[in-house]
Amino acid sequence: MSEMIAFLKPDPAILSRRAAILADIADLLPDDALVTEERELVPFETDAFVSYRRLPLAVALPETTEQVAAVVRYCHREGIPVIPRGAGTSLSGGAIPQEDAVVVGLSRLNRIIEVDLPNRCAVVQSGVTNISISQAVDADGFFYAPDPSSQLACTIGGNIGMNSGGAHCLKYGVTTNNLLGVRMVLFDGSIVEIGGKALDAAGYDLLGLICGSEGQLGIITEATVRLLAKPEGARPVLFGFPTSEAAGACVSEVIGAGIIPVAIEFMDKPAIEICEAFAQAGYPMDVDALLIVEVEGSDEEMDAMLARIIEIARRHGVSTIKESQSATEAALIWKGRKSAFGATGRIADYICMDGTVPLGQLSHVLRETSVIVARYGLRVANVFHAGDGNMHPLILFNANDPEEAQKAELAGNDILKLCVDAGGCLTGEHGVGIEKRDLMTHQYAAADLDQQMRVRSAFDPKWIFNPSKVFPLEGRSGK
Amino acid sequence: MSEMIAFLKPDPAILSRRAAILADIADLLPDDALVTEERELVPFETDAFVSYRRLPLAVALPETTEQVAAVVRYCHREGIPVIPRGAGTSLSGGAIPQEDAVVVGLSRLNRIIEVDLPNRCAVVQSGVTNISISQAVDADGFFYAPDPSSQLACTIGGNIGMNSGGAHCLKYGVTTNNLLGVRMVLFDGSIVEIGGKALDAAGYDLLGLICGSEGQLGIITEATVRLLAKPEGARPVLFGFPTSEAAGACVSEVIGAGIIPVAIEFMDKPAIEICEAFAQAGYPMDVDALLIVEVEGSDEEMDAMLARIIEIARRHGVSTIKESQSATEAALIWKGRKSAFGATGRIADYICMDGTVPLGQLSHVLRETSVIVARYGLRVANVFHAGDGNMHPLILFNANDPEEAQKAELAGNDILKLCVDAGGCLTGEHGVGIEKRDLMTHQYAAADLDQQMRVRSAFDPKWIFNPSKVFPLEGRSGK
Repeated sequence: MSEMIAFLKPDPAILSRRAAILADIADLLPDDALVTEERELVPFETDAFVSYRRLPLAVALPETTEQVAAVVRYCHREGIPVIPRGAGTSLSGGAIPQEDAVVVGLSRLNRIIEVDLPNRCAVVQSGVTNISISQAVDADGFFYAPDPSSQLACTIGGNIGMNSGGAHCLKYGVTTNNLLGVRMVLFDGSIVEIGGKALDAAGYDLLGLICGSEGQLGIITEATVRLLAKPEGARPVLFGFPTSEAAGACVSEVIGAGIIPVAIEFMDKPAIEICEAFAQAGYPMDVDALLIVEVEGSDEEMDAMLARIIEIARRHGVSTIKESQSATEAALIWKGRKSAFGATGRIADYICMDGTVPLGQLSHVLRETSVIVARYGLRVANVFHAGDGNMHPLILFNANDPEEAQKAELAGNDILKLCVDAGGCLTGEHGVGIEKRDLMTHQYAAADLDQQMRVRSAFDPKWIFNPSKVFPLEGRSGK
Repeated sequence: MSEMIAFLKPDPAILSRRAAILADIADLLPDDALVTEERELVPFETDAFVSYRRLPLAVALPETTEQVAAVVRYCHREGIPVIPRGAGTSLSGGAIPQEDAVVVGLSRLNRIIEVDLPNRCAVVQSGVTNISISQAVDADGFFYAPDPSSQLACTIGGNIGMNSGGAHCLKYGVTTNNLLGVRMVLFDGSIVEIGGKALDAAGYDLLGLICGSEGQLGIITEATVRLLAKPEGARPVLFGFPTSEAAGACVSEVIGAGIIPVAIEFMDKPAIEICEAFAQAGYPMDVDALLIVEVEGSDEEMDAMLARIIEIARRHGVSTIKESQSATEAALIWKGRKSAFGATGRIADYICMDGTVPLGQLSHVLRETSVIVARYGLRVANVFHAGDGNMHPLILFNANDPEEAQKAELAGNDILKLCVDAGGCLTGEHGVGIEKRDLMTHQYAAADLDQQMRVRSAFDPKWIFNPSKVFPLEGRSGK
């Protein structure tokens, strides 16, 4: 376990009053809704960014918005940090607690409240899993578009906190483009409704601001999300290339031509080998890079778009083109892609970076990524949302070797700086969390960060929500 | 001229120091960049919401971001209100000044800085007109999607301030969905870059918050906007119905079925008559309501989508279906629609409401709107973005009759309350401005407004930017 990233020091006054605080909070909740025993707290000590872990003071598992509000109001008054938590699938450590914090787990807020097909939306509690929304409307021919690879487990509340994306977000946008409203508990326990079923909002677009605010502006308890009609048909097609550069240049030209497939996913050779070994997806093994391009619509529409893409791919020396011939084959292709992280975890420890770059920089950044990782003597597998310019290098290392773990983190930092220097961004969909917190000064000037922190203070004057995250610990002007 | 809406009282200390203030500001600008003579200030005393007017202290016309910053820094220090202004086409009074304010006009920041087709974006100064972006990339087969009816005149800075929409936003989204980044001057004169060419932002989504903030969070001087590839073809089709209710129900069923044409525009009989008299667009005159539905893509795609829409329209008793047969006919159809406000202005004074409603409520709200307007003894024409649920009742009145002017405003207020009570929102694309400011308490609870005001204070601690707008003058907690 590496400890390159500092946490805020726990407040000794809170630790020493633990018993009294827990008794107070227990009074605000139903029986069995406050976890306090150390062995029961262990599952909450980290998330999918497993490099860091801290046992929290306690975990509250409220069942209603009002109970969430009561806990938040108490913690704000007492100055106790609050860590909102969905399913704990954050890849940037967004849900990792700290020793003096109360985790507010939303797992019991798991009801789909309303499906409103005439207005193409659903109202759900924030602990509902991503996939269950699509499942609830599947028979009616609708779906909820953002599809993180963790969609079987991750919750809509966490998706909103991190503005999550997924393979099909190239066409449909990420969470913020599919969110219509939230119900939210503010720092003082007041409950607000932001947005709703009708277009736009009077006054400021707080909804957009809330989406991606990483649990620092309040706790979301309900969400109204947009539903989309399922396409007539969909077809993933595999394009194999002799080099990563050629595949990257092909993506850039497809998008530059104004063609927007549903998805363009990229895998380099290590990723192809890892995923194929796991899923037997039928990926070609004699290529250096693979694009999974999904088109959708009627057969004629799919054929027309594919013809244009194939023409561009040919110009970039595509060596294999393989269309899925059945729903089973299509599902296998996606199973391989979506299990990339899990499959990688079987052969090595890894950290997954999440930088984005302008599309014209894809090939350059891929090349430099290999150089950086080689310099640290490590290996990398690249599997990512190429159409969005959202890169996911998986840096492989041995977590039992502290030196190697540190090298992996240093290589990751160098890669993210590379993305920013190429005109990109530290994070496309995983959030800043604790992982990228100290790189924010590489992305932003002091005036930019100061303004973000003033916004944070306007929502959370005592900075009790998820305080170790997003902003570097030094120079916190807003607090 | 009605005076139902109050402005903030001008600060006598500022008025009495006018000469010294103007001399100070002149020193910060090039020659001829500060307008101070009363007759030259008259064009800036109102905007397209002509019911109210105030002469400003002066109008600054800076040529660079740095000059904007210098003026803002000075005004913040001295506590002088600042009113940002694009082309002055606001329909909600967003650009109307007040007597103690300096207007910062962005008309000289009118350069297209960069067209970046590989990354499908353009970087423009904020005083560039909406249409000129599409014109600059037309030959390359691209366009900028949001298309307000005022697009020949309105500026991208104003579009961002109001989160403007347009007829084609049903498919492509409004300004916030097509904006990638801004350069912006903050209250203290610091210059920040928010967003950019790559996906997403690390930290909070300030870009979404800025979009629609009505000039109250800073002054935008540059914008990076998304470009889209022009479709293969596009075809507007006219659907005439015997009643407004039938047309409204048809829209609701089309959208509810998950069909998203590029545009679904609605006109009732008065609007049809007014627009046809002006544009000779070929609208059917024997119907009570008209939908302009635009589909796009290949001929096969358009035919397929139209067939589904026609089937639904038949179920709702459509009486006329007329496809445009040529580019000229298509252009005429749109000319008629986009000139609706101008054409109405030829026959009467009018105020244009901008409420949105969930689609299931369209017919109900149309019916109640007629009842409300009739109660005040006035007439109404409805012409609006039906697919988005974004209604635009034009209330006709005689501005030379103060009593009738007041009735029009009262009817407008009742209509907006009706929209909110139907689950909708005060504004879809025109903004709150000064027009709807005092209705914000009908839309929001105190806790909601308090949080919006805390956000405002986090960007503008002295509330110098556009201070008479958006928030009711009473109960301004954040100030």
